[in-house]
Amino acid sequence: MREKQYLMIPGPTPVPPRILRALSIPAIGHRSPQFAEIMKDVTARLKNIFETENDVLILTSSGTGAMEAAVCNFVNAGDKVLVMENGNFGERWVKLNKRYGADVEIIAGPWGEPHNPQALKARIDADKEHQIKAVFVTHNETSTGVVNDIKALREAVGDHPALFIVDSVSGMAVSPLKIDEWKLDVVATGSQKAFMIPPGLAFISVSPRAWAICEKVTTPRFYFDLRAAKKAYTEKFNTPYTPATNLIVALQESLKMMEEEGLPSIWARHEKYKTLVRAAIKELGLEPLAGDEAASGAVTAIKKPGNIDVKKISKLMREKHNIIIAAGQGKLETEIFRIGHLGYVHVNDIIVTIAALEMTLKELGMDIVLGRGVAAVLNLLVKGE
Amino acid sequence: MREKQYLMIPGPTPVPPRILRALSIPAIGHRSPQFAEIMKDVTARLKNIFETENDVLILTSSGTGAMEAAVCNFVNAGDKVLVMENGNFGERWVKLNKRYGADVEIIAGPWGEPHNPQALKARIDADKEHQIKAVFVTHNETSTGVVNDIKALREAVGDHPALFIVDSVSGMAVSPLKIDEWKLDVVATGSQKAFMIPPGLAFISVSPRAWAICEKVTTPRFYFDLRAAKKAYTEKFNTPYTPATNLIVALQESLKMMEEEGLPSIWARHEKYKTLVRAAIKELGLEPLAGDEAASGAVTAIKKPGNIDVKKISKLMREKHNIIIAAGQGKLETEIFRIGHLGYVHVNDIIVTIAALEMTLKELGMDIVLGRGVAAVLNLLVKGE
Repeated sequence: MREKQYLMIPGPTPVPPRILRALSIPAIGHRSPQFAEIMKDVTARLKNIFETENDVLILTSSGTGAMEAAVCNFVNAGDKVLVMENGNFGERWVKLNKRYGADVEIIAGPWGEPHNPQALKARIDADKEHQIKAVFVTHNETSTGVVNDIKALREAVGDHPALFIVDSVSGMAVSPLKIDEWKLDVVATGSQKAFMIPPGLAFISVSPRAWAICEKVTTPRFYFDLRAAKKAYTEKFNTPYTPATNLIVALQESLKMMEEEGLPSIWARHEKYKTLVRAAIKELGLEPLAGDEAASGAVTAIKKPGNIDVKKISKLMREKHNIIIAAGQGKLETEIFRIGHLGYVHVNDIIVTIAALEMTLKELGMDIVLGRGVAAVLNLLVKGE
Repeated sequence: MREKQYLMIPGPTPVPPRILRALSIPAIGHRSPQFAEIMKDVTARLKNIFETENDVLILTSSGTGAMEAAVCNFVNAGDKVLVMENGNFGERWVKLNKRYGADVEIIAGPWGEPHNPQALKARIDADKEHQIKAVFVTHNETSTGVVNDIKALREAVGDHPALFIVDSVSGMAVSPLKIDEWKLDVVATGSQKAFMIPPGLAFISVSPRAWAICEKVTTPRFYFDLRAAKKAYTEKFNTPYTPATNLIVALQESLKMMEEEGLPSIWARHEKYKTLVRAAIKELGLEPLAGDEAASGAVTAIKKPGNIDVKKISKLMREKHNIIIAAGQGKLETEIFRIGHLGYVHVNDIIVTIAALEMTLKELGMDIVLGRGVAAVLNLLVKGE
């Protein structure tokens, strides 16, 4: 019964039927006036969700493609860059920058804790000669379920001229990110997270200050050359290379749905899922990896209970209960498991996930009073939280 | 009536309803065992269509992404490369190689004529010291409707150690390409052409000889790093970054359809479309850009009739007759128009396209006896050609 599965990983998320219908429109000419109209409409709506006046460009790739664009368009080999790293996707910033020959300095924090703005401020303040060309941070660290305080991190950089570059692949539209107000130069995200459409598209915003750097950077790039994307959009509301047309039509539907719901409601919904999941797992005697203050609205990482193999938990959840959850990533691969709750998720999905988790843990030998986790969720719901 | 439009451009092609249904499956976990099974199945089927024992890798990008991968994985800055260029996509090989700092030598041929194998042979024979590291060719030049003789071109390179790299974005599965028999090291293609699925995926085959070069090349690459793609596939039948899952499920359906039809029948069908379109346009007094010997089964480029603005032809075809054709590209933008006939196309689509073209040209003032082009098609069909 594959079609009755619950996809509770931190992206790709379930896709609403309305968007699945949009996805399966007959083929459309990607250089037709109709498609240009769609691109224009979608780009305007995207800018509303990004809450920015900066350019927002659409790439046909995964979110990693947008992250690569955020490096190769703004960093030259030899440039000093600073990466805040507290998880698998912070490590991706490090790898990408090293691949392009940057001189990478890392401020590493424990996985499961947020970036430390004071540490960033101290390093920035010490850089009197402005050798640091860019600061890379992660909004929502998918691998640990930690949301970093982007506002405080940006404030820590202050007037230092380094570009401020954010991976918000799983953070955008899950929790607030004020691109213009906070002065975030480059923000990268992907389609299969809060945008609720299948993977294959990535979005990136670029500030005027970042464009000025982009024009001067000589790092080789072609498919991810943002100058080409901007030119094609400015001149003809299109893309330099064939875009994933059906996904863009699906995106248009998704953006309409997001507007109907409204960003504050979307944020509140994710906040609620986080609260419900954390209440339930604590009630079951499990421990979330992240503390309450920095807990993500997109995904909750849960520490391995006792000696139970986390791979067995996800296997049983999938095979016996039809619920797909995620293992750990990187160095926490066997130390945690993760429940995703972003995108097209309803409270009922949380309830069945907790119910299945209770049965799974009991089946694996834990001392679980069945129904207690679910009861914690229901009590919060009845109280209106 | 957008859904009644005929998409007669050289890709994206119409998408069969069976594939549209596959495209709109509910979300699937990209790291689930089910998806690994799909990847394994799809990769095996892809290799059958590629007719190769070489690795075939799936990228989430347009065909240009696979072309970039074919450069950045096999060429170092400063390497001497030879590009055969006779159209817009030959020019793309030039641009890509220059962007990565290669020392690019071009053997340019007139747009509308095929690559000249003798010219290639002469240059290769003169390269006694094996300074040329790679030869880049185009199988089907989408911009001119020319199919290049890849077998003869490969023979011209003989035992010279240069890698032989082919853009077959619009050629694969339209006309034969014997990757193993002809010893083609790298072949790049895209999803929205003969594979009949929407744009967003690209495929690339890599020979053992090419892998050996890839391992030594130091050009910076991440998203398009083929070593990462091979590693993820070999270790877990997956991709290094989130793949466009729904498109891959659609691809599985497309590959089943292609197997049911069989490659020889698919080639014969495209050959037939070419013959029908060329007969019709000649009957109408129009002139194809390519000669009969090198005419493409995927697309027919037609020279501008007299002083008629080709943009007016495609505008009228679209707005009045609901048929989308393509303008010229690059330096032939205003000199030709193009009818695509690849992928999910039926003889009836050719008939209505010719009928609409007749009406369009008459409406634009040409002296056309309505029905003559269509009659040429019908006569060939009745004769069984």
